[in-house]
Amino acid sequence: MCKACDYTIHGAQHHFGWDNTNVPAERVAPGSTILFHCHDSSAGQLGPSSTVETVKALDFGRINPVSGPIHVEGAKPGDALKITIDSFAPSGWGWTANIPGFGLLADQFTEAALTLWKYDPGTMEPALWGKSGRVPLKPFAGTIGNALAEPGHHSIVPPRRVGGNLDIRDLTAGVTLYLPVEVEGALFSVGDTHAAQGDGEVCGTAIESPMDVVLTLDLVKDAKLRTPRFTTPGPVTRHLDAQGYEVTTGIGPDLMQASRDAVSNMIDLLCAQHGMEAVDAYMLVSTCGDLRISEIVDMPNWVVSFYFPRCVFE
Amino acid sequence: MCKACDYTIHGAQHHFGWDNTNVPAERVAPGSTILFHCHDSSAGQLGPSSTVETVKALDFGRINPVSGPIHVEGAKPGDALKITIDSFAPSGWGWTANIPGFGLLADQFTEAALTLWKYDPGTMEPALWGKSGRVPLKPFAGTIGNALAEPGHHSIVPPRRVGGNLDIRDLTAGVTLYLPVEVEGALFSVGDTHAAQGDGEVCGTAIESPMDVVLTLDLVKDAKLRTPRFTTPGPVTRHLDAQGYEVTTGIGPDLMQASRDAVSNMIDLLCAQHGMEAVDAYMLVSTCGDLRISEIVDMPNWVVSFYFPRCVFE
Repeated sequence: MCKACDYTIHGAQHHFGWDNTNVPAERVAPGSTILFHCHDSSAGQLGPSSTVETVKALDFGRINPVSGPIHVEGAKPGDALKITIDSFAPSGWGWTANIPGFGLLADQFTEAALTLWKYDPGTMEPALWGKSGRVPLKPFAGTIGNALAEPGHHSIVPPRRVGGNLDIRDLTAGVTLYLPVEVEGALFSVGDTHAAQGDGEVCGTAIESPMDVVLTLDLVKDAKLRTPRFTTPGPVTRHLDAQGYEVTTGIGPDLMQASRDAVSNMIDLLCAQHGMEAVDAYMLVSTCGDLRISEIVDMPNWVVSFYFPRCVFE
Repeated sequence: MCKACDYTIHGAQHHFGWDNTNVPAERVAPGSTILFHCHDSSAGQLGPSSTVETVKALDFGRINPVSGPIHVEGAKPGDALKITIDSFAPSGWGWTANIPGFGLLADQFTEAALTLWKYDPGTMEPALWGKSGRVPLKPFAGTIGNALAEPGHHSIVPPRRVGGNLDIRDLTAGVTLYLPVEVEGALFSVGDTHAAQGDGEVCGTAIESPMDVVLTLDLVKDAKLRTPRFTTPGPVTRHLDAQGYEVTTGIGPDLMQASRDAVSNMIDLLCAQHGMEAVDAYMLVSTCGDLRISEIVDMPNWVVSFYFPRCVFE
């Protein structure tokens, strides 16, 4: 896949959670290009023939393996790691699940559910949803980050100021990402690859899909960056937007509740328009619907809007 | 402007705040097309030759006039008002202000500030920002809503389940908007027209600009709609996205604080990259930067990203 890569990190070279005493998988000079083989976020517990029983039996101690860590020579606390996201080689299969206790509407969707996906990793044509839906694909790594300064083992689940489980769906090929460095060598890792996700990842999972990732790691000395930032080389929603959107809203003084309302309203709308089960709509919108803050200043009520791309059904 | 309009609502036919005892400016049959002359959100207190002193002297009792109300014959509580947004005729001038005490970062930006804009209402070419910036325009009505069931006078500032000061920047020409009806006749009003705004309207104002609006009002009986929803006929960000985005993030357990952090980080970035004053960056991003919720499920930390379109400076 990567003729120009300086290093390959194999799937076996992964870790669970963040710990700045993890032994580096590789030590590289700034400017190195690296191929990472990434597991799916279940670390292979789910496969193309899994059923909902596998979701119920998931071992959460083996969630979100990340490949690495990479020690970047010369990286010091206060620097930024500059990551050029070169390319993805997706596997062609994936899964989306409702995992009880996890997700924006966990109180409403208490039963495990599973959707399995197949897609063409060559053409990356939209993945089929049932008989009539087509979900556009745009691969990215959900988890991408550096080790924390704080000693000890830290859960992989929450993203932090050094990155991690950011689940920013626009961290696609061509993007330049900057992450704060907090330890010598940065100790960078990547994984949790997604074939598609909407802004919010509202049911808690995307199209979870193992794939290979090629990145180039470089340094910006003394960047004094507080949180991750990135630059996109061009438009970010053109795989989704050609037919416009159906949009629902949540309005009120709490952004979390407004987000929940906007998503609930969209699930109701899709169920009414397409006769689907609510949990299926919940999983579908997690792969392609976008949560946006329309206004955050008209005291005391804010507006969160949830954008569902009409191209999925048109 | 509107050869096919059934009615014209003049600028004098406006009201401040919502009150379901307001006398209708017009009674119309479902399906009527109406031209509304809309004031800017200062009700003319600010004009093309205003200075920051005018901002300091703003009379908040005369903020956000809305043209109307329209009594739609046959509209009953439980129905939805279907609003087809036909067209806008912008005036060619506008303003953006930092109003002390108002806006997402009101604690950081305590001094009044004002930006005046001129643009070509015929071509709607991007409006010039200083010597090098160009802000793409896409007009919409910031305030669009029905009267509330609750008796009495209600501030115009907060949006509510029947709409109002939604400040959803994608309510542009071609969109179909549905609003819950809570009183006989719906009592629909519109105003607070904006020539451009980013998702969030973070400094509290957009490019505030008087303009004419043409809408068609219809009914969906017994829609039992909980909050506003809308359908867009096509893409919503193509006026902004051709050159991609600079994106900053805020990460943490509170969406409001994460939003504040993402915007603060963007202001710092623009000041560093373009040598502008912080309050100018704050006003600029309010007209074109988008707040998006990248993930809202990776407990306990959420990611809010702020997207600044690179086309403004490239």
